[in-house]
Order: sequence, then C-alpha cells, then structure tokens
Amino acid sequence: MTDLSRATALLTIDVGAVVANWKRLSALVAPAEAAAVVKADCYGLGMAHIAPALFAAGCRSFFVACVEEGIALRRCVPGAMIHVLNGPLGGDEAEFAAHGLIPVLNSLAQITGWSSFAKKGSGAPAVAVHIDTGMNRLGLSEPELERLAAKPEILAAMRPILVMSHLACADDSDSPLNARQLTTLRRLASHLPALPQSIAASSGIFLGRGFHLGLVRPGAALYGLNPMPGRPNPMSQVIKLQGKIVQVRDVDSPMTVGYGATHRVEGKRKLAIVAVGYADGWFRSLSNRGHGMIGGMKVPVVGRVSMDLTTFDVTDVPVEHAHPGGLIELIGPGHGPDHVAEEADTIGYEILTALGRRHHRRWTGAEGAAS
Amino acid sequence: MTDLSRATALLTIDVGAVVANWKRLSALVAPAEAAAVVKADCYGLGMAHIAPALFAAGCRSFFVACVEEGIALRRCVPGAMIHVLNGPLGGDEAEFAAHGLIPVLNSLAQITGWSSFAKKGSGAPAVAVHIDTGMNRLGLSEPELERLAAKPEILAAMRPILVMSHLACADDSDSPLNARQLTTLRRLASHLPALPQSIAASSGIFLGRGFHLGLVRPGAALYGLNPMPGRPNPMSQVIKLQGKIVQVRDVDSPMTVGYGATHRVEGKRKLAIVAVGYADGWFRSLSNRGHGMIGGMKVPVVGRVSMDLTTFDVTDVPVEHAHPGGLIELIGPGHGPDHVAEEADTIGYEILTALGRRHHRRWTGAEGAAS
Repeated sequence: MTDLSRATALLTIDVGAVVANWKRLSALVAPAEAAAVVKADCYGLGMAHIAPALFAAGCRSFFVACVEEGIALRRCVPGAMIHVLNGPLGGDEAEFAAHGLIPVLNSLAQITGWSSFAKKGSGAPAVAVHIDTGMNRLGLSEPELERLAAKPEILAAMRPILVMSHLACADDSDSPLNARQLTTLRRLASHLPALPQSIAASSGIFLGRGFHLGLVRPGAALYGLNPMPGRPNPMSQVIKLQGKIVQVRDVDSPMTVGYGATHRVEGKRKLAIVAVGYADGWFRSLSNRGHGMIGGMKVPVVGRVSMDLTTFDVTDVPVEHAHPGGLIELIGPGHGPDHVAEEADTIGYEILTALGRRHHRRWTGAEGAAS
Repeated sequence: MTDLSRATALLTIDVGAVVANWKRLSALVAPAEAAAVVKADCYGLGMAHIAPALFAAGCRSFFVACVEEGIALRRCVPGAMIHVLNGPLGGDEAEFAAHGLIPVLNSLAQITGWSSFAKKGSGAPAVAVHIDTGMNRLGLSEPELERLAAKPEILAAMRPILVMSHLACADDSDSPLNARQLTTLRRLASHLPALPQSIAASSGIFLGRGFHLGLVRPGAALYGLNPMPGRPNPMSQVIKLQGKIVQVRDVDSPMTVGYGATHRVEGKRKLAIVAVGYADGWFRSLSNRGHGMIGGMKVPVVGRVSMDLTTFDVTDVPVEHAHPGGLIELIGPGHGPDHVAEEADTIGYEILTALGRRHHRRWTGAEGAAS
C-alpha cells in the first residue's frame, strides 16, 4: 500500500530496533557467532527489509525454513551463509546448489539423499547436520548417527560445517530438559567429525554461556519478543500496529454489540469501530478480551472481533482522539506482541506471523542500522 | 510458488465449486439478486482467480471491505458494481471516483463528507446506505436517519441505490433478534427514498424468503463454509490443504514431543513431521487437538504446533503413505474448514482468512465456471 489516506491500518516496523537487538545478542554471546533466524518472512515483519540491514550490521549466517525462503533471501543478501532448516524435500536438491543454500540435514534419509546428489556434482557442498536431543521433531536419532558413523563414505561427499540441535523447553530455565539436551548433543556429536555446534535459539541464549557453543540462532528476540517469559524483557520493541477508526457510535439505550450479541451495553457508552479484524491477524480470540491504546488510555475490545472490524469502548476517551479517521494503537511499546498474545491465548510468535497483508507497512530505522 | 517439488504445502482451491455455490444461492433467492462478498482476498482464497469466474457466471454486484481491495477488484472485473463496506475513511474519496467504487456510507459523518465531495464533481455518484438495526457496529442509527431526513439536500448530491443492514445472529435461526432486525430495517428505511434493500449474508439467506429482500450478500457460503451451523452443510467444499512430510521418526522409548514437552510418547510410535506450522495459518491452538488425513486414516496432531512444523502420530498408517515427501491432508472434503475450526476453537471464516502465504496454491475448475 502506498497511500496512508486509504490505509485501514498502519504497521510500523523498526528495523533499527531489530539490528540493535541482534547487536546486543551478538555482544552477549561473543566469541560465539550470532546468526539470525529470518524464516516466515522474518516472523511476518519483512525479510527483504530486515535481512540486508542485519547483514550490513555484521550478521553473516541466516536460517530460513524452506527452500523458497532461501531463494528469496539469497536475492536480499548475496554474500550470506543461508541455512535451510527443512533440508531438501526430495527433488529440490538442485535448487540448493543453484542458489548456494546450505541444507540442514535432519535424518539419515536426507543425508543419504544429499550424498547421492552431491556425488553427481563437483566439490563437496556445505551442510549442517541436525541432531535430535529430546525435541522429537526434526533431527537425527542416536541409532541413525551410529549407522552414519559406520559408513563414513556417506559424509565424504559433503562438507559438514555445523552440528545443531533444538531445545524443547528453553523458555523455562528451570526445566531439567535443557541441561540434559546439551549433554546429549555433546555426546551424540561425537559420532560426527569435530564441528562448531549450536543448540540455542532466543531463549536458549539466556540459559547461560554453556549453551552458546559455536553459534546461536536468535529469531524471536530479534523481533522484540521476550526470550525470558515472566521476567523483564531485555529486548527493544520493534512493531507498532495502529488501526483506523471508521465510525464512532454513541449508544444510550441498553443493547448488544457485534456478532452473536456477546457484549451488552447498559448505559450511555461511546464505541469506536476500527477497520482491523481477524482477516488482518487480529485474532478472533481477542473478542471481549483484547485492548488497544488511544490518547494514553487503555480501551477494551467489546463484542466479537469480526473479519474486517473490531469495536472498542472509548467512552472515557476525549473526542479529539476518538474520531473517525483517528488511530487506535493495537500493538505498541506499552502493549507489545507478548501482551496481545496473552489476551489472545497464544504466544507472541503467532501474533507476529499472523500480521495481516492489508496493513500499510512502514519500515523505519534501517538507515542507521549499519552504523 | 511455481515448482511443486520445492513446496512445503499444496493448497487447492476449487473455483468451480465457488461458482456452483454462487449459482445455487442465486437460484434459491431469485428474483432477489445474489451479490458476492469477496473482501479479504475472497476470504483468503484469491480474489484475482475467483471474482472473474463469478462475473462470468453472471454475478454483477461485489462487496469488499476497503478501498484498496476495491481498486484491486476493479482490475479483475471491469464491468462489476463494486461496493466498499468501510466507506471513505477521510481523504480517499477521489479513489472511489477514479475507480468507480460505490461507497457504503455508514454514518451521518460519512454521508455529509461524501455529499461535500460529490458536490464538487459532476453527476450524482451511486452510494449504498448502511443502517444499523442491532449489530451496533457500522451503520446509521435512528437519530442519525432522522437528522438526515430533515436535510434532504445532503442526499441530493448522490444517488442511493441500496439500503443495507447486517444481522448479528443470523447463524442462530432461533434468535429473536433476526426478525426484530428485519422489522427495524423496514421501519428505519422509511426515512430514506424507496430503494432496494439488503440484510442477508450467507446465514441470513437460510432464514427464509423474507430475509432476501432485493439483494443478498453471501461470502462464507460461497467458499464452502456451512451457513447453518449444526445442520448439514448445503454448500460444496472448496479447499484442500496438503502438507508435505519432512521426516518420519520412529520412537521406541518413552519421551516427549515438541516445544514445552506437552505430549508424551510411551511405547513404539511413528511420528510424521509436516512442513506446515502456525506461520502458515495452521493455528497453534490445534496443538494436541487437531487432525489430518492420510491414506484414508485420521491422524492426530501430537505436541505443540510450531512455527513451520507440525507433528502427527502416524503409527497405524502404512509406510507407502507416511514417508518423507508424502502429503498429509490438513483440510479437505471430509475434514473441512468448519471442522478444523472446531478443533482450533474458532470459526471456519478465520481458518480461511489465515491460510498462509507459503502454500503452493493451485486454482482448479475455473474453466468450466462460466458455463
């Protein structure tokens, strides 16, 4: 969208804050390397705007989920190391080679498939090996690693540059699984050649230096989500979402509001109808539970969030703020994505990745990002 | 996405089924006109593919939410009547004129603003007037209508072609609000010139002929959602979503699965990890609750849905189906969006509008749509 006057909502993304977050983490983990996880279009915030700024700030290793994202990222950061977490899905190996993407190999089947592919080419392409240490999602199991170690010719066709694993409970620093996974990684990695290791994503970084190993893979923390739920957020906030008021409605007799008549107004109230709904990623689960901010005041969502509209009770807000064409802040510094997520009964990650396509998006702070 | 081999998921949209649904509703409501609600990119299914097929089938009136959508729709269906439900938001009136968009005017403020704008131009542009009859969202209130009736010069600058309202509880045929809103519309419309009226969206159509008036505005029903929750769905299913299996994991000792270790495997199980997660609109609320279909069998989501991956228990599925590169049906004919919505604790509408951008999308059936 190009014209603010016709926008229904304004999403401001502070690229400078993303870069500042990366720099803070990079300094925290040095001499370990800080990569950047930019999958899902930088958690919905715009890879094409953010990845080049991170590269300019010194970030050299990036992680995406799938090969399509890797191809798009290659256009943004020609000189970066791009890891593709899914690895090859069968038939797309040539895409990895063509775009210089590093597959994360998650199973013996992926490794042997890649080995066959690599033997047909020249040189030994770089790969990362993913070991499962207790997540039971992607990654090689111990029996697979033993079988791999027994056939060194499989890995001979490629050049492993990283061994990685993934913590299941990193956001709970009390979980005994964290230390157990770290120990398991060290033990299982002995089946492979000596390589830089990585186990920590955003939350894992804050479990302590022992988890930093050779490389850390922050994603959420770069985008301002709190890597330590329940404790003060050490990261800078990145996004602000403002929805435009379509209509302000005065109600003075008892009546219900919205679909399903789930909210009842008893006395004189003033309602602001905002042009943002669940089709914009403003979750329907915020119905009668979410909040916005306007003129420094917190205003509640009343009634059900509908597809394109949400109603707020703005009775106590001065008219100079609550008027048609005005803006209600739905997500912002004092009311960040983690907070909205609590109200929507999910996590901040899902609030970010759901951010809608109808928002007028504005990226700020990128110019100073590389300094 | 252009190459299926590198796709993480395949979303098939049966445009022919959308057109068949529109034709069925059109026949049901005749001689009333059946419009099509195509806002939010046809509820996430692709306006550029669907709107022209509907136009070719005879649909002439379309509804979108905002002016940006109207401009995009004008490119798809040059000859259509395009209503913009938000109406002008201040400063964007010229866009309506430039693209031949019909504003739905929702408040006295919007009407007077539009009147001032229209007086500057030549001719009297077509508008729709939205009356609130109990939804308390957008629409003129009775006091506003009285003030408007007292100043006929305001409407003189424009050409009202439709008066509309919106039912709050149409999906509950027992709600007394339905008949009350219809009566209120008829009473309040008397403040305006005699015009075609509209109150029914998808569910409203099935409340009976009295609700059809001059025009009905189906959206959800076109896209296969059930307009009569709790009763058999009269509409054809439109979408199928298949996610690709990245890895199949054999587990044979007790362990937990996924983030937060929320699912515990006790015996020998087989898990399939699929490359679809909440960043693709496969809601995190499906964690430990959702299902997929593979080889004719229903398979449960185990553990938490993560951003790019979901794990299914495929222990009982023959290996010829559950293998890396194979597909698990996440949404399909026997497991439609309404059903997935129940498991995700929302409504089918939100399942559709959240459908992700990483899916490889395929539109079928459009060729026969105009017949």
